[in-house]
Amino acid sequence: MIITSLDNNKIKKYLKLKTKKYRDQERLFLIEGEHLVKEALKSNKLIDLLVLEGVEVTIDFPYTYITSEIIKKLSSLESLPKMIGVVKYIDSKDIESDKVLILDNIQDPGNLGTIIRSSLAFNVKDIILSLDCVDIYNEKVIRSTQGMLFKVNIIKSDLKKIILELKEKDYVILGTNVREGIDVREINPSKFALIMGNEGQGVRPEVSMLCDKNLYIKMNKKVESLNVGVATSILLYELNR
Amino acid sequence: MIITSLDNNKIKKYLKLKTKKYRDQERLFLIEGEHLVKEALKSNKLIDLLVLEGVEVTIDFPYTYITSEIIKKLSSLESLPKMIGVVKYIDSKDIESDKVLILDNIQDPGNLGTIIRSSLAFNVKDIILSLDCVDIYNEKVIRSTQGMLFKVNIIKSDLKKIILELKEKDYVILGTNVREGIDVREINPSKFALIMGNEGQGVRPEVSMLCDKNLYIKMNKKVESLNVGVATSILLYELNR
Repeated sequence: MIITSLDNNKIKKYLKLKTKKYRDQERLFLIEGEHLVKEALKSNKLIDLLVLEGVEVTIDFPYTYITSEIIKKLSSLESLPKMIGVVKYIDSKDIESDKVLILDNIQDPGNLGTIIRSSLAFNVKDIILSLDCVDIYNEKVIRSTQGMLFKVNIIKSDLKKIILELKEKDYVILGTNVREGIDVREINPSKFALIMGNEGQGVRPEVSMLCDKNLYIKMNKKVESLNVGVATSILLYELNR
Repeated sequence: MIITSLDNNKIKKYLKLKTKKYRDQERLFLIEGEHLVKEALKSNKLIDLLVLEGVEVTIDFPYTYITSEIIKKLSSLESLPKMIGVVKYIDSKDIESDKVLILDNIQDPGNLGTIIRSSLAFNVKDIILSLDCVDIYNEKVIRSTQGMLFKVNIIKSDLKKIILELKEKDYVILGTNVREGIDVREINPSKFALIMGNEGQGVRPEVSMLCDKNLYIKMNKKVESLNVGVATSILLYELNR
C-alpha cells in the first residue's frame, strides 16, 4: 500500500504532530531515520511506520509507503530520511537511582539532546526538567539524543518541590560555582543530584540556594564558561569515576 | 549620524558579508552583540561598528547608528542585537605550543564553536581545521565560540601534510578508538596533537592511520558515542591535567 496524497487523513494527523500543542494532545511524536525507528521499536514505543516508496525495509514492523513529497512535508531535515516513525510519549517513572540530573530552563534543543546522550553515557538515567525547559519531543532534541531518549527516565516537575524531596532522601544537591566551588576532581558522592542551568542565566537563584555543595571544572581563567552541554558532560563524567 | 536606507553603499556591502564567498573576498566578517564587539576591539580586529539607533554606547570606538530595519537584515538572530561589528579576518600564525587540536571535516557550526571555546578553556590554542570543515566565520560558529575565536590560532590546512610535519617535531598524534584505545585517564603526553573527526563518519581513514595512539573515554557501553563537541572537550579536559 502507498499513500500519495497530503489529504490522506493519517498524514494530515501526523503533520499536526510537528506542533507541541498537538503532540501533547495526542501524546505522540515523530522520529526520522532508521536508527531512531529501531530504538523506538526496541522500546515498544513505535506505533506506525512510514517509508519512502521503493526503499527496502529490514525492520520487522508493518509499514506504509509514502511519496517523497509527503516525507518532505513530515521531515524537519534538509536531506530527507528514508523513514518516519510515529511514536508514543514516554511515561515518567519514579526516580530509581542514586544519580540524578536536574536541568533548569535549558532552551537550546541541541544542548538538551546532547545532555541526555551524555547522561546515559555516564550512568545517570534519571533526568528532571524544569517546566520551562525546551520540549523533549522537539525534533532537534530527539535527533541530538541519538536514540538515547528511549533509555532514560525523564521527569518534568517544579524543581523546588522535587529538590526538597530529594534532600529528604539524602541526595547531596550539587550546583556549580566558578569562584567558590570545589574542584569536581576532589569529590565523589555516592548519592547526588546535579543541577545545571539555562544557557545565559544559569540556575535561577531560588533553586541555586538549595544546593549543598558547588562544583567547578578546572580551566583557563580567560574563559568565563563552557557550553552547558559540555559542562554537564564533564561533571557527569567525573562523577562517574 | 544615522543610516536609514538599505540602499546605503556601506550597508549593501556589509549585507553581502553574510555569504562565505564575499567574506573570503573582502576578508571581513560580521559579529553581533556587545560581548563579541568588545572581544573584537580588544584583539584590534574591529573596523566598523553599527549601533541600533538610540542605544547608549559605552564602547570606545567610533560608531554609526542604523535603524532596526537595517539591523534586522544584517542580523542572523531572532532577538535583534543592539550592535553589529565589522571585523577583519584573523591571520593564522605558526604553531607555537605543545598542544594541538586537529579537526577533520567538522560540519555543525555549533559543534565547531563549542570546540573552539572548550579548547581555550583547556589550554589548547593551536587548532588545525581540514579544508572541508564548516567556515569559522559562519555566524553560528562565531556565536558558539563566545568570543574565544579571537584568542586562539586557527590554521586551515591539508591534514596529512601538517600531521607529517608535526610528527617530525615529535608531537604524539592522538586519535580515538572506542574498542582498541587507551583510557584517556591513563595517558599524559607533554607534546601532542589530538585529531577529532566528522559528526557521522569520524576521522577519515587516511588521516586516522597516521595516529600514534588511540584514546577512549570510559562510558556506559549502551551509548555508542558522544557528541563530538562533548568528546573533544572531555579529552582536552583530561589532557590538561
